[in-house]
Amino acid sequence: MIYLDNAASTQIHEDVLESMLPYLKEQYGNASSIHRYGRLAHKAIEKARKQIAQLINADPSEILLTSGGTESNNTVLRGIPVSDTSNQIITSSIEHDAILEPCKKLSESGLIVDYLPVDKFAMINPSELKNHLSENTCLVSIMFGNNEVGTVQKISEIAKICNEQNIPFHTDAVQAVGKIPIDVKELGIDLLSISSHKLHGPKGIGALFIKNGIKIDPVILGGGQEHGLRSGTENVANIVGFGKACEIAKNNLDENMAYVSKLRNILVDRVLEEIPEVTLNGDPKSRLPNNAHFTFLGVNGEDLIIKLDEYGIAASTGSACSVNTQRASHVLQAMGFSHEQITGSLRLTMGVFNNENEIEQTVTSLKKIVEELRSFSPFKEKYSFSKT
Amino acid sequence: MIYLDNAASTQIHEDVLESMLPYLKEQYGNASSIHRYGRLAHKAIEKARKQIAQLINADPSEILLTSGGTESNNTVLRGIPVSDTSNQIITSSIEHDAILEPCKKLSESGLIVDYLPVDKFAMINPSELKNHLSENTCLVSIMFGNNEVGTVQKISEIAKICNEQNIPFHTDAVQAVGKIPIDVKELGIDLLSISSHKLHGPKGIGALFIKNGIKIDPVILGGGQEHGLRSGTENVANIVGFGKACEIAKNNLDENMAYVSKLRNILVDRVLEEIPEVTLNGDPKSRLPNNAHFTFLGVNGEDLIIKLDEYGIAASTGSACSVNTQRASHVLQAMGFSHEQITGSLRLTMGVFNNENEIEQTVTSLKKIVEELRSFSPFKEKYSFSKT
Repeated sequence: MIYLDNAASTQIHEDVLESMLPYLKEQYGNASSIHRYGRLAHKAIEKARKQIAQLINADPSEILLTSGGTESNNTVLRGIPVSDTSNQIITSSIEHDAILEPCKKLSESGLIVDYLPVDKFAMINPSELKNHLSENTCLVSIMFGNNEVGTVQKISEIAKICNEQNIPFHTDAVQAVGKIPIDVKELGIDLLSISSHKLHGPKGIGALFIKNGIKIDPVILGGGQEHGLRSGTENVANIVGFGKACEIAKNNLDENMAYVSKLRNILVDRVLEEIPEVTLNGDPKSRLPNNAHFTFLGVNGEDLIIKLDEYGIAASTGSACSVNTQRASHVLQAMGFSHEQITGSLRLTMGVFNNENEIEQTVTSLKKIVEELRSFSPFKEKYSFSKT
Repeated sequence: MIYLDNAASTQIHEDVLESMLPYLKEQYGNASSIHRYGRLAHKAIEKARKQIAQLINADPSEILLTSGGTESNNTVLRGIPVSDTSNQIITSSIEHDAILEPCKKLSESGLIVDYLPVDKFAMINPSELKNHLSENTCLVSIMFGNNEVGTVQKISEIAKICNEQNIPFHTDAVQAVGKIPIDVKELGIDLLSISSHKLHGPKGIGALFIKNGIKIDPVILGGGQEHGLRSGTENVANIVGFGKACEIAKNNLDENMAYVSKLRNILVDRVLEEIPEVTLNGDPKSRLPNNAHFTFLGVNGEDLIIKLDEYGIAASTGSACSVNTQRASHVLQAMGFSHEQITGSLRLTMGVFNNENEIEQTVTSLKKIVEELRSFSPFKEKYSFSKT
């Protein structure tokens, strides 16, 4: 199989698995226990916390370990202190459901949630944020890199606006961390969500960066782990693997970025050149290095996925998570796409384990499949598919 | 090391790790993806769900996967629908902090929380429950087997009382599942929390049994996984391991119960016989097969743990989780223990990977350590340690 769905999940790096195995075998202590087993588990967690912190230039004390990116996002939205005079949240219309769904619930419970619009490249205009800010704003949450179309927001500008008003700024950076350089201090970020399995670590583990001084109330209560901010026996093996994955990502960031974006550029260039009536979606320049997102007019994206799967290529129409809800992409809708444009969308996300040969094969298969599907298309008269 | 802290966490069974490895290596798909990788992950999860369900005689559709026992408990307490006329929760004074802390928060937000008392064996009198029930009761949550002293409650009687009044009954069965037979249908349980790492599965994964027809609102919102009840990319490898651990526990339940309780009984008999001024805490009969909990008068339990650790024995004073909060055991307080009795407490919890030789060694070491510590005790005149 050619795996081009790295935005949905990634292969665990073999050194990551290697680092986890002792904690899945002999080192099975509960990190809260006083005895040797407990102390070793505790020590391993603190080492990982440091590795995670270093990837984003945070202090280890600013890293809260969670069960994943979704929990990190939920922790921010449910944990940020609100009051009658501090009750407005500003987010965007292209966030992941792990932001949008908690926002919907908060809005039902009386909070004001404003959704910033985006342009046709899924880019937010920072001046829109300025227009929406009020003295009641208690949180701004804007995604770093979009999970569907890959657009990377002007995080530095957005953070600056929030910093000036002393409003906590959160970014869901699940797709961006480990892919592009992120320095929370330099960027002025207060809160940032990370997911391990998006950067070649194990699933079921993530982190929330909470800048020292920012107050977040705990969502999961109990034994008081994570300084009372997230109770529950620590998932030691996965934490260790997550730490290792961050270390590897940090040490290879430039090299991997260059490698993955080269693959992506080859794919994009060839697809745009060799297949008619196709567009690249998302910002052409400010985008995640691993993301290619297309619209093939006259084709149904789901048919495309199924056909690609038959050809041994793993791809996606957009967010894997949205499969459960079976809705049309809210990201593409926010970008002003027509129903047809949304229907014909395909996301291909590369990773360090892909190679040029796979990209070659993918383009060849894609050409065949698009041509075949278009030959059955009810729109074949409407569009000029003649080039195929 | 002799590991006698199986109530804190357990060694992963080698067949469990074996079952996880494919999902930590080549099967890294996101279970929500449509392609082959996704479908295989999804299938693996559903197989595990069935294995978990079978251990407690539930239907797979009644198993909600969570990040662990603490999240399962929090999901019940935060997810149970409340209203102005349905706002009383009844629990007990000996619950785990993963129940007590969310209850404290609910109580701060205006709900009424009643804590049933226990007798000196940590046993709840079901008639106390009857006395506290009102037309406003929206939930009863009583622990199955206590994590510190091992007392197993009269769950069937308690469930019956709740069933008759049509009040949802939840039990935190984290310490009991996989150790003693539990049939949710036969016992009349509506909601039940399970933790994987207490039964030789991996950490960071657990389940909540939600009887068909019982309504729980989701706590973690997002991509809509777990039928919208618990969002976040599924932790496939750990879910698979958890399922396997449940299957193994089910297939060996009687044998393991007999084996572990035999070890425990040898330990208890010898300690009570050979060390003076020691008591066994918790119910002598209705208790978890793996639990021995003692008070050694005139000894500080923490000193005991540290000394045992030096002798290569991993033990605990009580709940590993309470280490973070550094409080005296609320369980022993509820049982009416004096400060001295609480201070001198030691929990030794056995597992299937222990053997008689280890128990032998533990008793020998314990005798020496207790004698040594007592020789420094300020209470040595008060108690008759002369037998040592």
